[in-house]
Amino acid sequence: MQGAKACKKNSHLLFSFLLLLSFHLTLSLADKKAISKDQPCKHMVLYLHDIIFNGTNVANATSAQIAGSKPPLGDFFFGKFVVFNDLITGDHHLLSPPIARAQGFFFYNMKTDYNAWLAYTLVFNSTEYKGTINIMGADLMMMETRDLSVVGGTGDFFMTRGIATLRTDTFENIDYFRLKMDIKLYECY
Amino acid sequence: MQGAKACKKNSHLLFSFLLLLSFHLTLSLADKKAISKDQPCKHMVLYLHDIIFNGTNVANATSAQIAGSKPPLGDFFFGKFVVFNDLITGDHHLLSPPIARAQGFFFYNMKTDYNAWLAYTLVFNSTEYKGTINIMGADLMMMETRDLSVVGGTGDFFMTRGIATLRTDTFENIDYFRLKMDIKLYECY
Amino acid sequence: MQGAKACKKNSHLLFSFLLLLSFHLTLSLADKKAISKDQPCKHMVLYLHDIIFNGTNVANATSAQIAGSKPPLGDFFFGKFVVFNDLITGDHHLLSPPIARAQGFFFYNMKTDYNAWLAYTLVFNSTEYKGTINIMGADLMMMETRDLSVVGGTGDFFMTRGIATLRTDTFENIDYFRLKMDIKLYECY
Repeated sequence: MQGAKACKKNSHLLFSFLLLLSFHLTLSLADKKAISKDQPCKHMVLYLHDIIFNGTNVANATSAQIAGSKPPLGDFFFGKFVVFNDLITGDHHLLSPPIARAQGFFFYNMKTDYNAWLAYTLVFNSTEYKGTINIMGADLMMMETRDLSVVGGTGDFFMTRGIATLRTDTFENIDYFRLKMDIKLYECY
Repeated sequence: MQGAKACKKNSHLLFSFLLLLSFHLTLSLADKKAISKDQPCKHMVLYLHDIIFNGTNVANATSAQIAGSKPPLGDFFFGKFVVFNDLITGDHHLLSPPIARAQGFFFYNMKTDYNAWLAYTLVFNSTEYKGTINIMGADLMMMETRDLSVVGGTGDFFMTRGIATLRTDTFENIDYFRLKMDIKLYECY
Repeated sequence: MQGAKACKKNSHLLFSFLLLLSFHLTLSLADKKAISKDQPCKHMVLYLHDIIFNGTNVANATSAQIAGSKPPLGDFFFGKFVVFNDLITGDHHLLSPPIARAQGFFFYNMKTDYNAWLAYTLVFNSTEYKGTINIMGADLMMMETRDLSVVGGTGDFFMTRGIATLRTDTFENIDYFRLKMDIKLYECY
């Protein structure tokens, strides 16, 4: 009878261990699977400042048109292609301390409205972050917010993926525009 | 002897449970690991219609050349760069109901044959789908089919990845071409 | 007493099995989770040879400028846009057997130094590999090495992701440059 008692105790121990293990594993698997839109592993809010080169503002300009359609196709710059190396700040002041650069290009691509396509790299080189985030996608400018894909990263953002949500923060004549970028990363290593 | 019997029963129960658990876990892990070429989580067949701007067809044109190599490098448009905002339909009729737009660019890049490189976004805004799919890669035009990478998505295609297989469906003089696109997504969230 | 003994033995067996299972599962999960910078699933060292078209070297040229900023923005080719179809070899000799092509583009994007942005596809068509690897990112030329993102792949590189580390191997006047590429893939299927 003593043996049976010890055995029962052992069995209970085993069952408990088993339940814990199975619970733990369920959680682990769920953690790995559940990429939830509401729970990025990192979230950053950045502001991009673009100052277009007009032929004379060499000191301030951060972008330049390099090509376009001749003759024009429609009235909304279809094909106008711009290379940029823009300032990134943490708030919407142009003169705030820069926290990154955005290097890339965009072009307009609609006959009936302003609409663009972008690909660029956020280059971080500060005490907080070193590394890059690569982004591409359509900038559907008629929508209040539009989502682009974060397709990769390096350094502190090694192998990341996610979504960059753009919002036009201001558009001052044709010389300057500012975008608010919500960067939500869902794969962090 | 009764104790030993109960104990044996318990052990059997435990073993059974253990086997089930281990079987279940093997399956779970396999499910997550097995990205199989033959089993995309989503498969769509789309047709892309490109009508090149010739200087006069403003109403119909969906793409425009914006740059090229001068003087030419070879006889196959090396460097010719085209921005497009093309119609996407579910079959090969140009006048079928549009189900998306393809916004992006391509350029030719070979001296000895027609060969291109593309990056573009499929923009869906219908009752069936809202969201975008981002694609890039080489369009090796001498091959019957060629695979590009689906590198990301947004909205209904949040964080997707996959393969876009292109096939030239028709090429009518230099004004119009149509591509068949097999989109196979292997990561769906 | 015999029953208790058998029971104890069974329990030991169970515990051992349990420990093994838990150990194995920990490893499996770690395998899947642990994308470690030091342990790519594939590593390749490649050399890219770029011979710029100067208007006369049609036979040798592998790249051509197609656009730029007029007037110039700074003294470092800001906006100069080049389409390429470059030779890839396994060592730094231009005449070594080609093992792939690199098809894509780059453009300069800095006012104060040489700095570029690239997107390209490595096209393999040999007995060893058939398929493509798609790469994009900033080429911070002032740094000895710089990391770009491998954002996708096809064929033998189906759905791959990783990092491409570039190093300028040589830069001979403005006609020829050679990049060393360390391709480290962290997702292999």
